[in-house]
Amino acid sequence: MRTAYLDHASTAPTRPEAVAAWTERAGLVGNPSSLHSAGRRARSAVEEAREEVAAALGARAGELVWTSGGTEADNLAVKGLWWARRAQDPRRRRVLVSAAEHHAVLDPAEHLREHEGADVRLLPVDAAGRTDLDALAAELAQAPEEVALVSVMWANNEVGTVQPVAEVAALARAAGVPVHTDAVQAVGHLPVDFAAAGVDALSLSAHKFGGPVGAGALLLRRGTPLVPLLHGGGQELGARSGTLSAPAAAATAAALRAALSGQDAERERVAGLRDRLLAGLAERVDGVRVRGSLTDRLPGNAHVTIDGCEGDSLLYLLDAAGVECSTGSACQAGVPQPSHVLLAMGVPAEQARGALRFSLGWSSTQEDVDAALAAVGPAVERARRAAAGSSRAGRRRPAAVAS
Amino acid sequence: MRTAYLDHASTAPTRPEAVAAWTERAGLVGNPSSLHSAGRRARSAVEEAREEVAAALGARAGELVWTSGGTEADNLAVKGLWWARRAQDPRRRRVLVSAAEHHAVLDPAEHLREHEGADVRLLPVDAAGRTDLDALAAELAQAPEEVALVSVMWANNEVGTVQPVAEVAALARAAGVPVHTDAVQAVGHLPVDFAAAGVDALSLSAHKFGGPVGAGALLLRRGTPLVPLLHGGGQELGARSGTLSAPAAAATAAALRAALSGQDAERERVAGLRDRLLAGLAERVDGVRVRGSLTDRLPGNAHVTIDGCEGDSLLYLLDAAGVECSTGSACQAGVPQPSHVLLAMGVPAEQARGALRFSLGWSSTQEDVDAALAAVGPAVERARRAAAGSSRAGRRRPAAVAS
Repeated sequence: MRTAYLDHASTAPTRPEAVAAWTERAGLVGNPSSLHSAGRRARSAVEEAREEVAAALGARAGELVWTSGGTEADNLAVKGLWWARRAQDPRRRRVLVSAAEHHAVLDPAEHLREHEGADVRLLPVDAAGRTDLDALAAELAQAPEEVALVSVMWANNEVGTVQPVAEVAALARAAGVPVHTDAVQAVGHLPVDFAAAGVDALSLSAHKFGGPVGAGALLLRRGTPLVPLLHGGGQELGARSGTLSAPAAAATAAALRAALSGQDAERERVAGLRDRLLAGLAERVDGVRVRGSLTDRLPGNAHVTIDGCEGDSLLYLLDAAGVECSTGSACQAGVPQPSHVLLAMGVPAEQARGALRFSLGWSSTQEDVDAALAAVGPAVERARRAAAGSSRAGRRRPAAVAS
Repeated sequence: MRTAYLDHASTAPTRPEAVAAWTERAGLVGNPSSLHSAGRRARSAVEEAREEVAAALGARAGELVWTSGGTEADNLAVKGLWWARRAQDPRRRRVLVSAAEHHAVLDPAEHLREHEGADVRLLPVDAAGRTDLDALAAELAQAPEEVALVSVMWANNEVGTVQPVAEVAALARAAGVPVHTDAVQAVGHLPVDFAAAGVDALSLSAHKFGGPVGAGALLLRRGTPLVPLLHGGGQELGARSGTLSAPAAAATAAALRAALSGQDAERERVAGLRDRLLAGLAERVDGVRVRGSLTDRLPGNAHVTIDGCEGDSLLYLLDAAGVECSTGSACQAGVPQPSHVLLAMGVPAEQARGALRFSLGWSSTQEDVDAALAAVGPAVERARRAAAGSSRAGRRRPAAVAS
């Protein structure tokens, strides 16, 4: 059976260019911190990749800190900025984050609240998932000297809404507060210019644009104080210790190069497929509601809720039909829990349970879209029957679907 | 020019088996947390690798937490145990670490001292670099309820001395204190049995035994409380968030499998080469002093100091002759600073400056040893002339060597 992989937002297929770059560099020995020739060659590979990735994103090479991925970059930004800002002035207890952030931002903030006395304020989002700028301005107007940091993502991982990052940055910088943006879903999919956006820190993850898993970076504006998360060998000018991976750096650069080559046309191609998918879903199934912004949206994101279904049931039924997607939530155990993003957008819990996220990218084709459209009608019908049965039986999870 | 790579302790050449495993798995898509078929296949790859690596090291699969490498594993152990133990009882302020630990343990401990009030005690080591068990016992006897954790490495990265880890663990456990061991240099090179050693936490790094850079693990005894370093998606049962890398896990398992296949014979082969290297050095050059234990020693470690030389000068001169090694210190900038390990062993600073570490492993051959022996005599002669000239000129770094 042909499989339609429509879950790029979870992880994209690794691009052949990235695999080749990784393999080539992994065939050469050398720790980039070693002083001999092999070490210096590994160092050159890391630095060339650093320059290329930074330049492609409007940053200087010295502003890129390699990390093990987006989660580490987010943790480093949120905790590292918090610790540094608190050390400068212990009154800085407020952490302002959008209510629709990824858990890699929300959970570090929550950790700081529980263990270090942070006063975490969740900025509300509108019905499209867009962060409320007035709420941010109001928070900043109230004792700006007590705000440690602001973190608002570039684009939402579930519903795909692109956030007003430049406006967020302008407000925060006027108040003298550093801004972090989780751009994990944006880099390689949208034009991202670190300097032009005016943010102080930006997270990216290679595997979201076809690079290797376990590689990422934090862009950090020169002079931004940051306390490291990992201490040791003092790599990355002390901001992040740990042996640098020349293969991962080279593969990340190769993947980003491929992602940005002809990016305008590719963005249009992917958005075209996505729009055909959304239109086809609405045509074939009643009770389909597109979530997130219809204008400021990641090109590959097709997030919907489908009335009267459990997203997990749909996911399994579609998988059985060779269509791979996700419910959009970080739900791992198969227990349906409404997404915090959808709830923050004001979606009723009942509708939020029927969430389904198709996400397209470099490998996606019209065939994938056709396969999804062919499978979704029967899947919804069966999921609705199961949900109705389950609800009659007082159970949340129909046996017919768990099989 | 043929190059003799004798710096396995910095990083080993990636084994072909590991590159093949990485590449094969990187050609398949799937986030191990995704519920569809591709995700479940990626999850299976991660879990099979987890079982294999854990079993090879005397641990249960549920006791292995994947990390981005040894530095992260060390940071997670030292800080994670500290936070968890302090949360249970705030009197636990003492952190006992050997004075010869790697910076990935020393620096997190120092961070806790500076920022969180830890009372860090450096356990002395003897002339061979072996941790003083009496000093540990004395520290534990004095208010054991105030000790947060003990961290003593399995084998030293500079001088290769194998530590009395089981004795350390027995003392600490009798006092009710958890023990971490940094086994980054030991795994794949010595028999390592987590359960038999009696430790609570053990760090390993894949690239030290021919796996990929950027992959490692913390073995953590079931039920050991630990506060995570990275928060987010809740992977690894919440102990370490971040997308799991199926390619890295598979490549780590492949490398360890290769390292442990015929390990007794291989250990003997590598130790034989190492002994020939040490004997040859002593034969060819006067003023060579072998550092570290002559009995309890990593098979591939040949650490010496050479009187009247700067180790960095020797390193560059040997590199120019096609022999790649290190000074044994984490010195990255080329500024000669005596190693904290050698100083803790009581080596005079003047002798410590002449440190040179050759480290052998799976790719090492008699030819490599011969190349090193052929190059070392002339290099020492030149380094000594340069050092004498530099000392007359009042400079530390001879221009003849920096070129």
